[in-house]
Amino acid sequence: MNKHFDVGIIGGGVIGQSIAYQLAKEGVSVVVLESQKIGSGATNAAAGMLGANSELEANDAFFQFAKESQRLYHTLSNELFEYSQINIQLVDNGMYKLAIKDDEVEALQQLVKHHSSLQWHSREVVLENEPTLSMGIKGALYIPEDGHVSPTHVCAAFSKSANYFGASIFENTPVHTIEKTAANEYTLSTPHTEFTCKHVVIANGVWSGYFFKQLGINGSLKPVKGECLAFQSSDIHLEKTIFYDHCYIVPKGDGRFVVGASMVENDWNTLPTIGGIHSLLEKVTPILANMESATLLHTWAGLRPQTDDGKPYIGQHPDGESIYFATGHYRNGILLAPQTGIMIRDLILGREQNEEYVEAFSLKRKLAQKVRG
Amino acid sequence: MNKHFDVGIIGGGVIGQSIAYQLAKEGVSVVVLESQKIGSGATNAAAGMLGANSELEANDAFFQFAKESQRLYHTLSNELFEYSQINIQLVDNGMYKLAIKDDEVEALQQLVKHHSSLQWHSREVVLENEPTLSMGIKGALYIPEDGHVSPTHVCAAFSKSANYFGASIFENTPVHTIEKTAANEYTLSTPHTEFTCKHVVIANGVWSGYFFKQLGINGSLKPVKGECLAFQSSDIHLEKTIFYDHCYIVPKGDGRFVVGASMVENDWNTLPTIGGIHSLLEKVTPILANMESATLLHTWAGLRPQTDDGKPYIGQHPDGESIYFATGHYRNGILLAPQTGIMIRDLILGREQNEEYVEAFSLKRKLAQKVRG
Amino acid sequence: MNKHFDVGIIGGGVIGQSIAYQLAKEGVSVVVLESQKIGSGATNAAAGMLGANSELEANDAFFQFAKESQRLYHTLSNELFEYSQINIQLVDNGMYKLAIKDDEVEALQQLVKHHSSLQWHSREVVLENEPTLSMGIKGALYIPEDGHVSPTHVCAAFSKSANYFGASIFENTPVHTIEKTAANEYTLSTPHTEFTCKHVVIANGVWSGYFFKQLGINGSLKPVKGECLAFQSSDIHLEKTIFYDHCYIVPKGDGRFVVGASMVENDWNTLPTIGGIHSLLEKVTPILANMESATLLHTWAGLRPQTDDGKPYIGQHPDGESIYFATGHYRNGILLAPQTGIMIRDLILGREQNEEYVEAFSLKRKLAQKVRG
Amino acid sequence: MNKHFDVGIIGGGVIGQSIAYQLAKEGVSVVVLESQKIGSGATNAAAGMLGANSELEANDAFFQFAKESQRLYHTLSNELFEYSQINIQLVDNGMYKLAIKDDEVEALQQLVKHHSSLQWHSREVVLENEPTLSMGIKGALYIPEDGHVSPTHVCAAFSKSANYFGASIFENTPVHTIEKTAANEYTLSTPHTEFTCKHVVIANGVWSGYFFKQLGINGSLKPVKGECLAFQSSDIHLEKTIFYDHCYIVPKGDGRFVVGASMVENDWNTLPTIGGIHSLLEKVTPILANMESATLLHTWAGLRPQTDDGKPYIGQHPDGESIYFATGHYRNGILLAPQTGIMIRDLILGREQNEEYVEAFSLKRKLAQKVRG
Repeated sequence: MNKHFDVGIIGGGVIGQSIAYQLAKEGVSVVVLESQKIGSGATNAAAGMLGANSELEANDAFFQFAKESQRLYHTLSNELFEYSQINIQLVDNGMYKLAIKDDEVEALQQLVKHHSSLQWHSREVVLENEPTLSMGIKGALYIPEDGHVSPTHVCAAFSKSANYFGASIFENTPVHTIEKTAANEYTLSTPHTEFTCKHVVIANGVWSGYFFKQLGINGSLKPVKGECLAFQSSDIHLEKTIFYDHCYIVPKGDGRFVVGASMVENDWNTLPTIGGIHSLLEKVTPILANMESATLLHTWAGLRPQTDDGKPYIGQHPDGESIYFATGHYRNGILLAPQTGIMIRDLILGREQNEEYVEAFSLKRKLAQKVRG
Repeated sequence: MNKHFDVGIIGGGVIGQSIAYQLAKEGVSVVVLESQKIGSGATNAAAGMLGANSELEANDAFFQFAKESQRLYHTLSNELFEYSQINIQLVDNGMYKLAIKDDEVEALQQLVKHHSSLQWHSREVVLENEPTLSMGIKGALYIPEDGHVSPTHVCAAFSKSANYFGASIFENTPVHTIEKTAANEYTLSTPHTEFTCKHVVIANGVWSGYFFKQLGINGSLKPVKGECLAFQSSDIHLEKTIFYDHCYIVPKGDGRFVVGASMVENDWNTLPTIGGIHSLLEKVTPILANMESATLLHTWAGLRPQTDDGKPYIGQHPDGESIYFATGHYRNGILLAPQTGIMIRDLILGREQNEEYVEAFSLKRKLAQKVRG
Repeated sequence: MNKHFDVGIIGGGVIGQSIAYQLAKEGVSVVVLESQKIGSGATNAAAGMLGANSELEANDAFFQFAKESQRLYHTLSNELFEYSQINIQLVDNGMYKLAIKDDEVEALQQLVKHHSSLQWHSREVVLENEPTLSMGIKGALYIPEDGHVSPTHVCAAFSKSANYFGASIFENTPVHTIEKTAANEYTLSTPHTEFTCKHVVIANGVWSGYFFKQLGINGSLKPVKGECLAFQSSDIHLEKTIFYDHCYIVPKGDGRFVVGASMVENDWNTLPTIGGIHSLLEKVTPILANMESATLLHTWAGLRPQTDDGKPYIGQHPDGESIYFATGHYRNGILLAPQTGIMIRDLILGREQNEEYVEAFSLKRKLAQKVRG
Repeated sequence: MNKHFDVGIIGGGVIGQSIAYQLAKEGVSVVVLESQKIGSGATNAAAGMLGANSELEANDAFFQFAKESQRLYHTLSNELFEYSQINIQLVDNGMYKLAIKDDEVEALQQLVKHHSSLQWHSREVVLENEPTLSMGIKGALYIPEDGHVSPTHVCAAFSKSANYFGASIFENTPVHTIEKTAANEYTLSTPHTEFTCKHVVIANGVWSGYFFKQLGINGSLKPVKGECLAFQSSDIHLEKTIFYDHCYIVPKGDGRFVVGASMVENDWNTLPTIGGIHSLLEKVTPILANMESATLLHTWAGLRPQTDDGKPYIGQHPDGESIYFATGHYRNGILLAPQTGIMIRDLILGREQNEEYVEAFSLKRKLAQKVRG
């Protein structure tokens, strides 16, 4: 098998596959090295909410980046289907961010003033649009642009499309070390094969932190475990995604509803905890009228990579090594995957960049003290 | 709970749900009684191929009915999404019916003469369009109109949409007896509840046969178990559905390929047999170049209801009872569900019928001796 | 296939299989008719606790029956292994029934006075024996005789052993009607086959209620759904089964812990509800110190058949028909299966009976108004 | 958390857990670092056959080692239950190694001459003992000592027992590098934690090969993927394990039969292939009379680590580093786990060794050219 590539991507999740797709489409020879199965990390565990507005507060470069990425899904949906025959399940019915306490009403109404795309819906309007929500709510912020996709389908579609353009994708292939060769290339050692590449992209989520140390990067990633559950009910109908107190209910395109996600810090176990699922049930029960009698289908968890300031690392190695980082996407990996793929592609191909983004996601940036909530 | 309805539908598979949807949309009060879970019978086991041309030989009323039903999926796809938020995964890239032996070439080329919509593709053209097919093939019949859907999604979409229009759907509710009341209505007895209905529709697949006897119908249904498997491979790309020797390979919208289906007669067990999966592997291995190294993901089975002449029973009780049958759809339940729903709706509402169809699917028809292959 | 048998047993759960085993071993020709899969009803959903002392209060015939059945497991364990090669996973380390509130301490200490086999263990002793229990407990009733088995294995072992002695077992074979023949035998109609039997045993749990009506029995069964979950934790060690407030934690022989069971009345859905699992997590979290961080593995549910006084129906049809009932075992099906098998065997073979049991479980008994807790 | 231990064991499969148990029991402080879940590699994929006689030909040190390990299971069964409450499902009914061709008859009859414990059973005797075997067989070698266990239960029992004696076990913790410290200890780097240990044991199966290179060991391991399937049938009864042409049928203690295993070299994918399962079905169908109609339950695969001569590496680093290897157990990991645990324990504690074993499994041994079949 070929063991020499222009670009070696470590991590076969949605970020790595998006990068592989953008590069392969430009004719670059790419290999993706995934330690387990494609998407088997944080990707498959995500609910797929495209929450640019609901998740982000400040109107900064990060927010602009997220909005651009969100918009990209509309073109990618057809583009990826053409190359992969995979439908990414884009649903674009917007989101309700609920207010149950009075101060929440105020806070959300404030946002409407600053974002023309947002609207405030009174209790009456909300219950008319979503009659199965509980009577307890006081109103909701309507976010037309925040839809959702199926993360598993998005990742598979990027992967099959990259593969269509010639990218090689190896599962069960963890990279243990990155070493520089005499020829200024990089050797990626796996338990069974060595790959040599001109450029390396580190995109294996929370496990990227290991390479930070190995490559002398001053920064770190911590896992924030997100626990989720899926339920079903013939008494519950939702057109929009529902969001309240970091907890969302996403109506998926197969009749299931996905509820997520808890935030358990520094737990590396990839299965849900009793405590996490318990807290999720506490949070979600008051939101829907018939929640108690709904059928619990499934529970699971994933490890989201969090940086010290909660924003991703997307950029080149500070010392100018031809090593690139695309990790630390925390709760927003699915949302940010399209634009991350384009940004890394342009960095590697030496194309013009949006300097604001380069700055915002640089590994050299001064990290805010407070983590994004 | 309400126990009195205009129409009681026995069976919550794709046929029953399609009927429930068409009736509920007209304002009829409907109850669907499903013995296990929605779609848990033959529906969820099906691959979802819409094989009007590939499955049917003669150009008869049955064929016309199938074609109309196939076309209906294009409008239903949007209609059902609007009411249920469920995407039925319609893929419309056509099908290749392969020729590997010389006589198969001839037979398929004959068909092109009689069906303007069909085309013959030479070996070269086929391999150019589908490069991962094995070199052994001699050509293929191209059937542009035979696409596929996701049966689970179709059934869930019909069900949630029927529910949207007020239909009641009870799972875990098997009907054991149908008895006529003094008021010329019908009592449906289940282990825990009795339902009274003006009209009854029997749509529980191969298990409908039980009511034939109970209702004095001279006819029978036998189960033909269909065993299936799903595989995955980065070396296999298919845009079209592949069909050969009653065996098909359907590229599903999530990167999996579904292979089906064996035909084991009079086996009521709903799990696959060693022999059935073995025969499937024998059949499919020669069709694709890299089949041996593909990953086997899953195996399953379903019981398809077969009548003596292989055509469904869709019609009223011969004695004029207000009992309707929609069963015996054999290998074509998904394909025929939309049109079956409309035909039963019109029968119950006393609307005009296509007499050819009424005749073709009547329970009184003289059954051909030979079963459709 | 043979369609004529001495005894036809409706229901392939642990009760029906125990009866089939006892009869087949005596050379009686037996057929078991199971509507879905062997043990797929309440049997596989049970935790397998043999809680004669923990579950039952009064020292009555029911209690004696339960104790005898519990003891039978010690001989059955070897006997069934010999015929089936299946190990029923009998674990015999006793149980702790916890006291957390003061009145619970008193209540449990009372019991010690009346049952020589029971002991009171102080908080210190309990925590020394089970150090991973939470500090909150005030002591526990130690019940040496209440062990546990694996219900799936018990049911499979009875079934394979019955089969070894010639019993026929048909899955996917629901019985819809029982009709008497001219020859004073009984015809059992299923969707695909009719079986004729000299004697009929109705042992299909909560679904037996359907035959009560059909056979003119004045009595009823209601489903009490029991929801369960399984967890795993390297910080939790339990040698004994733990019981508190109708909720138990059973340490199974594969390192998992099974927690059960909620009690949801008149819900026929066989999947767990959000509300039920929520309540289980509420109850169990205070019992173990490290519960919050334990790994949630799986959730499920089963329908337990409850009679009006909470005691099973085990006996002959009141009108002397050769129809026997073995149902309504509520939370105690696994515990009572061995003795139920023997009692029905002796009734059918006309052997001597313990008249107290015949009386206690008779279908003609006057039902207490209060349901057993 | 404590990050300093006497012994760090890389790999949480049955080999690593057996070593951890033996050391922890001696009061040694031990940490087990498992990259995924306990037993999730080759361990859980194994059928658990204890095939000392059936798998090994020569009467050499390897064979003696295997026999001792096999015998150890009889004492471990009770010992591990005491500490872990886990039953390892030891079944001790022996094995039939079948002869279907004439030369196989001869070959097996030869063996009887050299091994007093073996017996030749004629076709008649075999079919009397195992009536569901196919008529085609010509006789069988009866191996009374070759029983089987449940690998998942054995691994969990070792692990929980090691934990009982104080061992720390971390899942989701892959070790990427081993570096020597100034204090002559070893630092094991994982993506999230560094552990320091006086001694290191490398026991992560085929993935151990990676450390060979890193530690300058001249030797290699290749994966031999073993694909398996499980089936069920009421027409098939087996008391003994059946072995033919590297393919075995193990009657497990829950009524399932496990069939394995294919041998696919140098495939690192941990899922079964279409080709592998196909070959297994080809092999096993002729062995049992009713195989075709048996129910296929499940298929899976595992990667077995094979050395150049097919014998394991069990011993110290050739340069006297305090690094120990326990890997390359190929098809015999479950069989050899008990004795491997004892041998590594004694090496680390400096106890007396059986020099024949030290020699036979040394990393310095001259490897035979021919791999064991």
